[in-house]
Amino acid sequence: MKLAIDGMGGDNAPKAIVEGVLLALEDFPNIEIQLYGKQQELQPFLKEHARLEVIHCEEIVEPEDDPARAVRRKKDSSMTKILEAVTEGNADACLSAGNTGALMAGGLFKVGRIEGVARPALATTLPTIDGKGFLMLDLGANADAKPENLLQYAIMGYIYAKKVRGIDNPRVGLLNIGTEDKKGNDLTKQAFLLLKESNINFIGNVEARDLLDNVADVVVTDGFTGNMVLKSIEGTAGSMMSMLKEAFMASAKTKIGAVLMKNELKKLKGKLDYSEHGGAALFGLKAPVIKAHGSSNARAIYSAIRQASIMVEHNVTDIITQTIAENQEQ
Amino acid sequence: MKLAIDGMGGDNAPKAIVEGVLLALEDFPNIEIQLYGKQQELQPFLKEHARLEVIHCEEIVEPEDDPARAVRRKKDSSMTKILEAVTEGNADACLSAGNTGALMAGGLFKVGRIEGVARPALATTLPTIDGKGFLMLDLGANADAKPENLLQYAIMGYIYAKKVRGIDNPRVGLLNIGTEDKKGNDLTKQAFLLLKESNINFIGNVEARDLLDNVADVVVTDGFTGNMVLKSIEGTAGSMMSMLKEAFMASAKTKIGAVLMKNELKKLKGKLDYSEHGGAALFGLKAPVIKAHGSSNARAIYSAIRQASIMVEHNVTDIITQTIAENQEQ
Repeated sequence: MKLAIDGMGGDNAPKAIVEGVLLALEDFPNIEIQLYGKQQELQPFLKEHARLEVIHCEEIVEPEDDPARAVRRKKDSSMTKILEAVTEGNADACLSAGNTGALMAGGLFKVGRIEGVARPALATTLPTIDGKGFLMLDLGANADAKPENLLQYAIMGYIYAKKVRGIDNPRVGLLNIGTEDKKGNDLTKQAFLLLKESNINFIGNVEARDLLDNVADVVVTDGFTGNMVLKSIEGTAGSMMSMLKEAFMASAKTKIGAVLMKNELKKLKGKLDYSEHGGAALFGLKAPVIKAHGSSNARAIYSAIRQASIMVEHNVTDIITQTIAENQEQ
Repeated sequence: MKLAIDGMGGDNAPKAIVEGVLLALEDFPNIEIQLYGKQQELQPFLKEHARLEVIHCEEIVEPEDDPARAVRRKKDSSMTKILEAVTEGNADACLSAGNTGALMAGGLFKVGRIEGVARPALATTLPTIDGKGFLMLDLGANADAKPENLLQYAIMGYIYAKKVRGIDNPRVGLLNIGTEDKKGNDLTKQAFLLLKESNINFIGNVEARDLLDNVADVVVTDGFTGNMVLKSIEGTAGSMMSMLKEAFMASAKTKIGAVLMKNELKKLKGKLDYSEHGGAALFGLKAPVIKAHGSSNARAIYSAIRQASIMVEHNVTDIITQTIAENQEQ
């Protein structure tokens, strides 16, 4: 399979991207990579590889570029080029760690929606305490959602969890303010009824406080709430980590404590580390479009490439297309 | 002033309630307390006090009671009686650590809304890393909200932060998925415009990830989102605390680390402790109705009583009533 990768996106580009690409080429013999970016900037980190093709582009989509216009205006940017590669059938999936909004808008505009999918959704795998993780969507592709959108998110998430994450019959939960069936706002109350009638393994409402405790394999919500909850979790974890760091640096005594705790704290941090879980995927497009975290290191890029390759290998897009079509017919 | 207190609500009732009441009577010479509950259950913890009156009630609103009906049906319950006390003018404010939904529904039904307030809001002070804390509302009194509701929440929160928390010109932020002016869903986009035109000190959109960093003094959101974010913060903090505890218990070495860190960890835990911040208040009713946390200890009850007394002392309800009326006239 062929993957088109944006060499210029993300805080650590192009170094982390090139290194991640080289790691992936070593481990996954079935992938060929097209790496797009400024030749002279990629060069210092590159190694010759039979399955690596480097394609020069003059432009770069910057983090501050207007998401809605960036891909349209910067026609010779690495981000535009990877989207074109999948659109024109020259690649099976594409990946960038650059401007999220621009990639989403460009994905919609260039790659296009699967027929019958009203709204694409941004999905990612979040860590749980037991290390298993869960898929959450939508994380902000659409701020407003209708009940039918949430049903489609659920279907897409279910297929992904089954095919890419290898979970037999993924448990799908609806994020809500209580676990009782009739809880919620107008949106979740209506979505609950649609999900209950669907063929997927819907386990009912799940609460935000239980997310890290492996309460479901797929958690469905609207993009506004998803984004809020994701940022609340990240923000709280980050704040607590800095408070903890401060506590460890408080005195000579606590510094010794820190030394004794070092390995265990590293493990704890590892559990909350997103870099093993791949990137966020834009579900509902005609080809996999993967957004790696802006602060991705080589390891995170490697994981996102693995994620993209599994999506291609298991025909996730085709299965979503068929399932949505079948649901439309009913 | 007179405060009506539910002696039977909460996980640690009646012991924690009675102890909290006795502590408060000692420190605040201007309050008289009416304590409602089963005489024989309160008795073991009671002490005679000139400003304490105990009023026997036969019934108790239980956590599993239907919120909408509990107060109507259990006419001789301690919760019903404290609401009646403020309604009939026998008390200036009331407080319970019992069934939240029942207290909210009962508050609406018995005490009633301030004229012009379309929806009451549940508000509480959440901790920040710097120890200052911020007021957040609505935390779930109404799952759905309109832009005008958010404006009223903002006005009520502003007045509370100014009068009860003593902040000169409280910064009011709108919880949103980005800080830019035009970000958000339909609700926040419209609420943003209303808030911008208002007289309060509106500082724009604030993000969930920055909440613990003292980004605003008052954070306004709809009840669904507020509840989600509150539970995400609590859930993440709780999960991290248990992971940390596990890390400290991992080996003999880490246990020594734990001993060395003990004081600092206690401080850290104290920073995230809600018991110093009082309870949640139902804003927009004709008298202060305070909900103390279900797991309140005596200290938390004491703080909630102090909060209620400040609300009464500073005429918060009257000022909200006037301000809403003035806003209506415009």
